[in-house]
Amino acid sequence: MSDVKFDKIALIGIGLIGSSLARVIREKKLAKHIAIATRSEKTLARARELNLGDSYATDNATAVKDADLVIVSVPVGASGAVAHDIAPALKEGAIVTDAGSTKSSVIAQMAPELPAYVHFIPGHPIAGTEYSGPDSGFSTLFVNRWCILTPLPDTEKTALKKLESFWTACGSKIDTMTPEHHDLVLAIVSHLPHIIAYNIVGTASDLEKVTNSEVIAYSASGFRDFTRLAASDPTMWRDVCLHNRDAILEMLGRFSEDLSALQRAIRWGDGEALFDLFTRTRAIRRDIIEAGQEVDAPDFGRRKAGN
Amino acid sequence: MSDVKFDKIALIGIGLIGSSLARVIREKKLAKHIAIATRSEKTLARARELNLGDSYATDNATAVKDADLVIVSVPVGASGAVAHDIAPALKEGAIVTDAGSTKSSVIAQMAPELPAYVHFIPGHPIAGTEYSGPDSGFSTLFVNRWCILTPLPDTEKTALKKLESFWTACGSKIDTMTPEHHDLVLAIVSHLPHIIAYNIVGTASDLEKVTNSEVIAYSASGFRDFTRLAASDPTMWRDVCLHNRDAILEMLGRFSEDLSALQRAIRWGDGEALFDLFTRTRAIRRDIIEAGQEVDAPDFGRRKAGN
Repeated sequence: MSDVKFDKIALIGIGLIGSSLARVIREKKLAKHIAIATRSEKTLARARELNLGDSYATDNATAVKDADLVIVSVPVGASGAVAHDIAPALKEGAIVTDAGSTKSSVIAQMAPELPAYVHFIPGHPIAGTEYSGPDSGFSTLFVNRWCILTPLPDTEKTALKKLESFWTACGSKIDTMTPEHHDLVLAIVSHLPHIIAYNIVGTASDLEKVTNSEVIAYSASGFRDFTRLAASDPTMWRDVCLHNRDAILEMLGRFSEDLSALQRAIRWGDGEALFDLFTRTRAIRRDIIEAGQEVDAPDFGRRKAGN
Repeated sequence: MSDVKFDKIALIGIGLIGSSLARVIREKKLAKHIAIATRSEKTLARARELNLGDSYATDNATAVKDADLVIVSVPVGASGAVAHDIAPALKEGAIVTDAGSTKSSVIAQMAPELPAYVHFIPGHPIAGTEYSGPDSGFSTLFVNRWCILTPLPDTEKTALKKLESFWTACGSKIDTMTPEHHDLVLAIVSHLPHIIAYNIVGTASDLEKVTNSEVIAYSASGFRDFTRLAASDPTMWRDVCLHNRDAILEMLGRFSEDLSALQRAIRWGDGEALFDLFTRTRAIRRDIIEAGQEVDAPDFGRRKAGN
């Protein structure tokens, strides 16, 4: 049994992140009791069938009662309502954290609702797949992935250490930064890629002269790599766009500016500019593989997976 | 032994495509003799070490002498020079084809050079990985992938059938279309995705407020999916951009227009528009998986591959 031990952990939201947490908490024995809450009765019933927790509620306040650690894993637009629900039922000294993809907005929504006698430490595990719902989680989702914590100025060191130990026990590596910096970093590494992927898939499906069945048949030549991100949960990503607007608009501005320059190089046949860009982008992938954040199998290892 | 049988096949270029062809030709016994030509002495020496062929030359004309089938797999910008090299040495009745990612430009470069007594049938196997060079090929590269042929108005039916049988023996499914339509289809399914991927990786590496090491550490949240395409061969992709300019510029125009509309929805908080786009893009991925052009493992099956 791990040293990191909570009497009761409450998971608000039991999608990909919540259900992966439930599985790793159970596997690593990180809590005596796992309480699960989700608004959807259907999702809750599925969580129960999967035996993900020890108690189940559609009411968030019921789940957090007596909990030492509360982890909110819901679309970021719902954070404020969840904080409002749980505030009166929170135990003194409880740690409240979240797994949202934006941090400034989550803090603005949750902090004013939460009582001063709990430790609110916003967080974001950088892990996921394109699948959602309680069936999609797995206990190793966080292994070798970063979890970013964005403690507030008055966060107590002991509470922070305890939360860090929890994520470490889940397999994560920990980084801390300000919420503003988190939102800027994620805008480029995550939000912009998803937006671009959604956009190109939309552009392709709107063409008159190329059919959708042609796009599908010949997708192996590049297009399909974008469809993974563009298959992600629409509610989650709508909320991300609405709640990290400024950082996303800045990154979109830079991207479009660079794309205009690239388009100009194509129009005017500037082969040297094209070759230079296409060469320097190779190095980043090598670095990502070396950092253990990617597999080096060709074609994402798809060949081995049955092609 | 297969019914598809050539006395001698000449492979001009021995990179990912050429070396995969060499391997499948040998494995399926599709030719009695495989002749390999590449301009680079180093690459040729490596092909010899890998035992990819029966004869080796840095001179293209030597390789095509007496060949029944000549397959040109070089960056599309080099097609004209290759056609010029091989024209005087081609056997009467030989089939000459290519594997280039653009077709109108390849035809414009090669057709005027080739003698009337050979069958020139442009082609494009829709298969590849982000790796290049003779070591990167493998014999199953073409299995369950489409090969598009763009026969010219005067192409003889028997020659076309023979080339189709060859690709079928390699594992490919065959489609035929006009060169112009090919170039439009590929502009959206392949060329635009690569250009967008190169562009976003460039944008990310130019940021002042987010470090490259942050981009690398947190790339699992979306960015790394783009880096696979952006690690592709720079020479090949420079040539594609220069040789399919008009179709690429049309697709870039549409993409940018759609991105502006999306950017506007983000700026003005139009959640409904965002949700609608993010929902309809999901269906395409499902169709690609059902068409056997993608694996349905979460995260491209990366987890299984060692994460």
